[in-house]
Amino acid sequence: MIDIYEIIGLIAATLTTSAFVPQVYKAWKSKNTESLSLTMYLAFFVGIMLWLVYGIHLNSLAMILSNTATGFLALILIILKLKYK
Amino acid sequence: MIDIYEIIGLIAATLTTSAFVPQVYKAWKSKNTESLSLTMYLAFFVGIMLWLVYGIHLNSLAMILSNTATGFLALILIILKLKYK
Repeated sequence: MIDIYEIIGLIAATLTTSAFVPQVYKAWKSKNTESLSLTMYLAFFVGIMLWLVYGIHLNSLAMILSNTATGFLALILIILKLKYK
Repeated sequence: MIDIYEIIGLIAATLTTSAFVPQVYKAWKSKNTESLSLTMYLAFFVGIMLWLVYGIHLNSLAMILSNTATGFLALILIILKLKYK
């Protein structure tokens, strides 16, 4: 039985990851990444990967799922930023 | 002795929270919050608060610190957005 805190974690994961999607969609559609800071997204990406290591260590499904998804979205932004300087 | 994983968590916390500061600084300085989506930041804020509950449950210093700081920053953005529609 999945406990209440894991459900809270999964809702948190869904909210914070999905809050990131409009930014990626906008950059993807507009090809305009001028306002995005590459350094910020690189730092953010490294941070997310460390959270993923931390989540695996804690065996937290919510952290593993959210940081994998957010990491993937951040990677798309970084690639778009490099492509459309 | 603080274990290696808590150090990884604290580094992750510093990176992902500090990645958020330029956005808040820019909105604060420019008073221009047009490109910020209120719904996105409200969803993000609720998600961060749930991560905080989850972090307290796991007794994770890194999660408690980062989600308190990120929550505070998100709250500033929401207030700025409401003030400078």
